[in-house]
Amino acid sequence: MYQLGVVYRHINRAERATADALAAFGSATVHEAMGRVGLMKPYMRPIQQDKSVSGTAVTVLLQPGDNWMMHVAAEQIQPGDIVVATVTADCSDGYFGDLLATSFMARGARGLIIEAGVRDTKFLREMGFPVWSRYISSKGTIKATPGSVNIPIVCAGAWVNPGDVVVADDDGVVCVPRDLAASTLEAAAKREANEGAKRDQLASGVLGLDMYRMREPLAAAGLKYID
Amino acid sequence: MYQLGVVYRHINRAERATADALAAFGSATVHEAMGRVGLMKPYMRPIQQDKSVSGTAVTVLLQPGDNWMMHVAAEQIQPGDIVVATVTADCSDGYFGDLLATSFMARGARGLIIEAGVRDTKFLREMGFPVWSRYISSKGTIKATPGSVNIPIVCAGAWVNPGDVVVADDDGVVCVPRDLAASTLEAAAKREANEGAKRDQLASGVLGLDMYRMREPLAAAGLKYID
Amino acid sequence: MYQLGVVYRHINRAERATADALAAFGSATVHEAMGRVGLMKPYMRPIQQDKSVSGTAVTVLLQPGDNWMMHVAAEQIQPGDIVVATVTADCSDGYFGDLLATSFMARGARGLIIEAGVRDTKFLREMGFPVWSRYISSKGTIKATPGSVNIPIVCAGAWVNPGDVVVADDDGVVCVPRDLAASTLEAAAKREANEGAKRDQLASGVLGLDMYRMREPLAAAGLKYID
Amino acid sequence: MYQLGVVYRHINRAERATADALAAFGSATVHEAMGRVGLMKPYMRPIQQDKSVSGTAVTVLLQPGDNWMMHVAAEQIQPGDIVVATVTADCSDGYFGDLLATSFMARGARGLIIEAGVRDTKFLREMGFPVWSRYISSKGTIKATPGSVNIPIVCAGAWVNPGDVVVADDDGVVCVPRDLAASTLEAAAKREANEGAKRDQLASGVLGLDMYRMREPLAAAGLKYID
Amino acid sequence: MYQLGVVYRHINRAERATADALAAFGSATVHEAMGRVGLMKPYMRPIQQDKSVSGTAVTVLLQPGDNWMMHVAAEQIQPGDIVVATVTADCSDGYFGDLLATSFMARGARGLIIEAGVRDTKFLREMGFPVWSRYISSKGTIKATPGSVNIPIVCAGAWVNPGDVVVADDDGVVCVPRDLAASTLEAAAKREANEGAKRDQLASGVLGLDMYRMREPLAAAGLKYID
Amino acid sequence: MYQLGVVYRHINRAERATADALAAFGSATVHEAMGRVGLMKPYMRPIQQDKSVSGTAVTVLLQPGDNWMMHVAAEQIQPGDIVVATVTADCSDGYFGDLLATSFMARGARGLIIEAGVRDTKFLREMGFPVWSRYISSKGTIKATPGSVNIPIVCAGAWVNPGDVVVADDDGVVCVPRDLAASTLEAAAKREANEGAKRDQLASGVLGLDMYRMREPLAAAGLKYID
Repeated sequence: MYQLGVVYRHINRAERATADALAAFGSATVHEAMGRVGLMKPYMRPIQQDKSVSGTAVTVLLQPGDNWMMHVAAEQIQPGDIVVATVTADCSDGYFGDLLATSFMARGARGLIIEAGVRDTKFLREMGFPVWSRYISSKGTIKATPGSVNIPIVCAGAWVNPGDVVVADDDGVVCVPRDLAASTLEAAAKREANEGAKRDQLASGVLGLDMYRMREPLAAAGLKYID
Repeated sequence: MYQLGVVYRHINRAERATADALAAFGSATVHEAMGRVGLMKPYMRPIQQDKSVSGTAVTVLLQPGDNWMMHVAAEQIQPGDIVVATVTADCSDGYFGDLLATSFMARGARGLIIEAGVRDTKFLREMGFPVWSRYISSKGTIKATPGSVNIPIVCAGAWVNPGDVVVADDDGVVCVPRDLAASTLEAAAKREANEGAKRDQLASGVLGLDMYRMREPLAAAGLKYID
Repeated sequence: MYQLGVVYRHINRAERATADALAAFGSATVHEAMGRVGLMKPYMRPIQQDKSVSGTAVTVLLQPGDNWMMHVAAEQIQPGDIVVATVTADCSDGYFGDLLATSFMARGARGLIIEAGVRDTKFLREMGFPVWSRYISSKGTIKATPGSVNIPIVCAGAWVNPGDVVVADDDGVVCVPRDLAASTLEAAAKREANEGAKRDQLASGVLGLDMYRMREPLAAAGLKYID
Repeated sequence: MYQLGVVYRHINRAERATADALAAFGSATVHEAMGRVGLMKPYMRPIQQDKSVSGTAVTVLLQPGDNWMMHVAAEQIQPGDIVVATVTADCSDGYFGDLLATSFMARGARGLIIEAGVRDTKFLREMGFPVWSRYISSKGTIKATPGSVNIPIVCAGAWVNPGDVVVADDDGVVCVPRDLAASTLEAAAKREANEGAKRDQLASGVLGLDMYRMREPLAAAGLKYID
Repeated sequence: MYQLGVVYRHINRAERATADALAAFGSATVHEAMGRVGLMKPYMRPIQQDKSVSGTAVTVLLQPGDNWMMHVAAEQIQPGDIVVATVTADCSDGYFGDLLATSFMARGARGLIIEAGVRDTKFLREMGFPVWSRYISSKGTIKATPGSVNIPIVCAGAWVNPGDVVVADDDGVVCVPRDLAASTLEAAAKREANEGAKRDQLASGVLGLDMYRMREPLAAAGLKYID
Repeated sequence: MYQLGVVYRHINRAERATADALAAFGSATVHEAMGRVGLMKPYMRPIQQDKSVSGTAVTVLLQPGDNWMMHVAAEQIQPGDIVVATVTADCSDGYFGDLLATSFMARGARGLIIEAGVRDTKFLREMGFPVWSRYISSKGTIKATPGSVNIPIVCAGAWVNPGDVVVADDDGVVCVPRDLAASTLEAAAKREANEGAKRDQLASGVLGLDMYRMREPLAAAGLKYID
């Protein structure tokens, strides 16, 4: 956040199996499992539909209209990583396209989360490289001013440290701190285990009012029914 | 609009056949048939593509970050209803997901219109429960403060009374007051009956300028052609 | 830009073969080939996915809530044209739907770029008429006040002269001035010719840092690696 | 809301003394006194600072880019009224300037609330005619299509009936239904009577935690203090 | 618009007396006098209140996060000029502050219009250098990539040629093409000459409905009065 | 960021003299002195004009529509603190008004930075309590769900730790990490020392092009002058 012009080569990644396992639960369940924190702002949207990924964060701090650090970041990617990038000021430029995606995929990246613009979106969908971005724009960028790679960043309102787990799907993007990854996975699994039975009840016509025993607290809170 | 903490159990729904028939005309034709009123703001967008629905409104007034009233609303749903929900202040939280959708479907709801956020969007598309919302967000909500169900509300700039007809498709969402439903259906049918012939003429190369006899009024309005 | 109430019947269109050939390169490559100018703001979005078009611009200046000039424009369309429309003030109304699309297609138009709203979007997708717009809205418009056709306009921040080439795809919309069309096509072709080899290298794991020889300039710019 | 092209000449205004008295309490206290409903969206901003007004609503429904109904509304103004205007679609045009303000003042209007644009703002401040608007824009409007005067409208998300009381100040705009005006005034007065004593306590260093006896419910809600 | 990296040293400025005289009429009257064209988008706002300026445009095209061309532009300023700047993509950075303002004032500039951010706004108000901008931001910029000076640009949706007249006040910013400056001045003067008499009539209680003879056309347009 | 329902009673504040001294330099100079990092998004705006403050941060994480933690925070304020508050999701509600301001002032707070809404703005200006917020809204809040006090937060895109220095003025809000406060103060002082001489030169008509020796690098970057 406070260092410009540096690249950290060694980061502590969350345990691989944990990072991998979180994708299956999706961003909403993981966000609940964490206690409703860590979510990026909802203006981060996928360029594809029905994809869910999780992986360990390689972070990038970019300068406005300058994607030089994306090339620097490529070298730091390890299989299972997700690149998480932001800019020092809001910028809609297309920082990422088919060539960088080819390079990121070759390095083993699972996706890109970027609080800026991307381009070549049709190609990205076809090659199966998932992206969540704030903007889509054809506009290219220069390579003139260093930012940083693998420093802590704020991306779309969320605090992301290199090595944290990122979970992204159609509903949004959530960042799980490395130290909370295991307990979050456990909580997510527990949460989901309960959901199947609940869904069956609700599908059979039982009301949430009854299943969750809400009638009494609602009355206590003053809710009145009028016929 | 002005009552918090109340649920009206009995509402006068628009006639079922009329409410059902409006979906086929789509929001644009229905909006024209009503005299160009009753439309929600265009920031209300579907989470799915190519779905058109109509039904009778069950209305919900929610508190910021609190979806308690969605559970209360579930009990008031009758087959053919569409739930229309808004919040007392702009809020992007995910008020609605797969469990509530399961419950709403079991009650016979045809869809949800919500001036707030929803989540589990992939699941909602897969289960075929159509939703129009202002936001998509993984963020969950609490259950602490009563709002109201089946009071008149303002949703996305449109006035919606419980029992009114709601028509929603890829173009947006329009609300037809119960008392205007029958005349609106008639006007929509008449409007569409004319469109087939017009479409054929335009497809054959006839210009709207000639078909609608616009050349004279355009000249009268001062339009000049320059060679 | 400064003339209201006029229609220019004769415009100088960019050479047909050039205008046709640009679609294959896409808006991002064409934008680069032009020297990174001429792009519309990224709020212009397609209503369909995976379509790329190019053609010669017929321009339209509209009044708020009034689509009269769209009918006037229809007559000026020649096969291979793309209609580019804007309004004298921001307006989300649905200026364009299935009937106008039928007419535009019959005249040979390849698409519509409009800094305003459109409707009947499902129908437009089904009939294969591609549209890029700022808004989607069911709201109709009146026919009361003349604007202009085939005058220079500013659309979504880009300067568009009648006869210029417009290139649009999933990444955005770029306008190529008629006089720059041939040289832009050449530059785009050259650019793309280089991309295949680069993509192969990157796919094989070569880093952009090495392929583009960035390590030295990065060090010169002060980038530090920390182990 | 659903009638275009009509002017209601006779409306039932809230009692004058009540309507007049509400200004002194301000929009925040009145909003609380009503039970936290009736507030317009916070994008409605004053063009002047430190003015507070209240009065009875004369409502106007305008067409995009067309201010004809503002002239029609002028005739319906009685001393003590506030004109509340909205458009059938979002429009930033300058619907109101010095001439209309001169006319409205001559008729006894106390201010204007408009979900659209205004102009001549320096002049309006100098003449002391307070305005709350969504936009400021030099752009003028036409006079071509009727809207309506004194029908119920939705303005900036709030439901406004002709004759309701409108309260506006630096914090925003709230609409008090005519039938709730007297009870709201009473509740506002009671609320404010309590505030003086509270303010004195807080100013002397007493904490809200103690004054409002919040420590126990906070602990019950699970709040933990960490040293 | 299409040339990057160039500075035009000689531009044809609108006649000085005409350019100077337009400020007195204000942006709204000038915009009307031009036929309601040439206005910048209403998101361009003054950092000060109650200032009106007019002058001849020196144009600047900037790169994202890079204000190098502002220094290049300073040399091209002549007394009576107003600098009009835009960026190749939306950028909120603070491109302009007290040092550049000191330099611009020393060169005789009357103000700055910038579709980007500025800073040191308190200082700018104190030194009396008027600015209209899209953003206010403390964030500084680099000096790395050339843009252009005195080429035609699109600024906030308006087409601005070097030497055109710019008129800015609390209501917004309008650009008058050099060739239309004299006729626009004449039309503005005529328009304002009529306004005094109208204002007097309206102030005396005469209605616009009568003064503008609107009752008949309103009836013809179908307006109904209901008692 | 990741802990809900906790209050840290003991925080390490930046050294008082350093925290106090930064206000005089203003947010733009401090932001430069830090290396152009740490700035909040430019949508954070002051409710007053021409006020500059600096102080040590007491941080607050709020729930949507719930200001309970503001009362909890009051107790943690020490003289010279600035309260920095954010919400778990975007919310425009008025979380802060005259009573809380009275309490905060009594505790010695110097101001409030809040990524949400405030109310009673006229009163706050009159009492001289400076506020920077995202919204202004009359809407009140509930007291139902704990957030946290004095945990690290992300406020308007900036990472803020309790005890960090916050500097706010008309240009925006910057957060200086406690450990960087002394070096930032030094750098800011050095930066400002240079500015006086530069300002004098520029005021005398010397161009930045010459003073900063930009002509050669501009030529090297390819800038062309055209006569």
